[in-house]
Amino acid sequence: MDSFASRMNNYRNIINERLAKVVVKKTPISFYEPVQYILESEGKRIRPILVILACKAVGGNDACCLDAAIAVEILHNFTLVHDDIMDNDDLRRSKQTVHKKWDEATAILAGDGLVALAYHYLLKTEIVQIKEVCDIFTEGIIELCEGQALDKEFENSFDIDLTQYMVMIEKKTARLLMISTEIGAIIGGGNSTHRKILREFSRQLGLAFQIQDDLLDIELTSGKTFGSDIKQKKMTFLLVHALNNASQRIRDQIMKIFHQTEVSQEDILEIRDMLELSGTLKFASQEIDFRINKAQHLLNKLEPSESRHDLNMLLNWILERKS
Amino acid sequence: MDSFASRMNNYRNIINERLAKVVVKKTPISFYEPVQYILESEGKRIRPILVILACKAVGGNDACCLDAAIAVEILHNFTLVHDDIMDNDDLRRSKQTVHKKWDEATAILAGDGLVALAYHYLLKTEIVQIKEVCDIFTEGIIELCEGQALDKEFENSFDIDLTQYMVMIEKKTARLLMISTEIGAIIGGGNSTHRKILREFSRQLGLAFQIQDDLLDIELTSGKTFGSDIKQKKMTFLLVHALNNASQRIRDQIMKIFHQTEVSQEDILEIRDMLELSGTLKFASQEIDFRINKAQHLLNKLEPSESRHDLNMLLNWILERKS
Repeated sequence: MDSFASRMNNYRNIINERLAKVVVKKTPISFYEPVQYILESEGKRIRPILVILACKAVGGNDACCLDAAIAVEILHNFTLVHDDIMDNDDLRRSKQTVHKKWDEATAILAGDGLVALAYHYLLKTEIVQIKEVCDIFTEGIIELCEGQALDKEFENSFDIDLTQYMVMIEKKTARLLMISTEIGAIIGGGNSTHRKILREFSRQLGLAFQIQDDLLDIELTSGKTFGSDIKQKKMTFLLVHALNNASQRIRDQIMKIFHQTEVSQEDILEIRDMLELSGTLKFASQEIDFRINKAQHLLNKLEPSESRHDLNMLLNWILERKS
Repeated sequence: MDSFASRMNNYRNIINERLAKVVVKKTPISFYEPVQYILESEGKRIRPILVILACKAVGGNDACCLDAAIAVEILHNFTLVHDDIMDNDDLRRSKQTVHKKWDEATAILAGDGLVALAYHYLLKTEIVQIKEVCDIFTEGIIELCEGQALDKEFENSFDIDLTQYMVMIEKKTARLLMISTEIGAIIGGGNSTHRKILREFSRQLGLAFQIQDDLLDIELTSGKTFGSDIKQKKMTFLLVHALNNASQRIRDQIMKIFHQTEVSQEDILEIRDMLELSGTLKFASQEIDFRINKAQHLLNKLEPSESRHDLNMLLNWILERKS
């Protein structure tokens, strides 16, 4: 195992250990059991790792930022629990979603509690800029809500353009990563330039991450269910691009499939071929490369360090991941 | 109109004006429209008024605590939106509930956004103890969630005792009032004694308020739908007391009605008579008086002031209210 991977594992273990200790009370069981369930389910823990790496990349000590790292991971889990209800998803991280294992009321309440627990951990951070950190966190949650609202609004809207889509994924996906590195940079003692660099780094990372996610949906060898976005007629980067840029024939063909009540496996393969033919897949890959390059360029403005190296490695991991 | 009533009206107008300005963005419309809808629905605004009165009662200036006052009212509205989903209620303040007017996903998201907006306003408060204020707010939200969880757990549990019931209503009803006066006292520059007094005052106020609420349910002349708690087989102060203290015959009779699939108007009247007969109604009234007296006693420890007088008047209003 190379040193990057072992460091990531180490961080993940530290985070998992801390997450396991979040629920100290046992009652009311109907509240704390689902909270514990979601926090203990396997996750990549990218966001808390970003807090730690950003903190260290500006010369900070990772021990100081662990509570904030836990806070962003708890906040992320809140979004998962509530988004799963809104999207009526059955599975999350190979386990039943909270509202399926229990019920919707339980999941709503567990999510609400997770927001408060996230603030609880954030507020444990001992820095003079605690108000500023809370501001960033709070504005981030508002943006997350806006992003989720836009995502729902875009369902079955076949006339949105790529700019609208990018605004949505910036709020829904990138924002929490941006919060993570910015807060990490503040706790690490970074100056305003450091903060801006690390915030913008995460923006590019988040956008690339989401486009890659959209691509993985139609990759046969990925760890995800093939074509599930298309089956749900979800507006992904690929669909939005194709419906705005492909030839009239291809657009008509996609819309014909989307107007069917059911989308078959063959339909998915057909759409995949059309995305290839129209140059959408190539465009998406180029867009990811463009974002990753920008992010790398930003990192180069920081002093060289092991954590800067690890942030760079995280970028590569995005391109290589299968799920 | 007496001066207390006119001052309350004045505060309510100030709060309503501020609440009308919370939503400054218009998009995403699916997020901000329901948020605006709930904030603009008529409410008594007791919690923000408590912030103001507590602030002034310890010698503070009400202009300093208006953001925090708005924050607790927004937080209260968050609980209403999510509780209404969990309880599947159709109406709130004579208007359709958010999840009925829109849908559950919209209401979940609006509620989530309200929590963040509440913190947004709280964080605007310019005091050195902002971290402490955020701590109190955050621990309060966790307790609110615990209270809601207990309330759901108690549904159809006919074996809970009065202590368990009081713990639940302290978390679910009193806690937010306690947060309100404690935060008001901090912003007003109160010392730790002031804070303790005003926190405990609200605890007694909240408990009395909830028991009065339970009593109003079976009062024919109240503004509430007669017997709706009983119809829903909800465990109220009255039912819990009767099932723990009434004679075996009365308990059997209540349980017989509660085991029916439907509870009729006659059943409600019968239960009302049994609550009278068993001394439960008298006990509830005494309990309210006891709490109100305790609260008054606490107020007397503060320096006399117009706001102390108004807090006292608020207590009387609880006893006299019809809805």
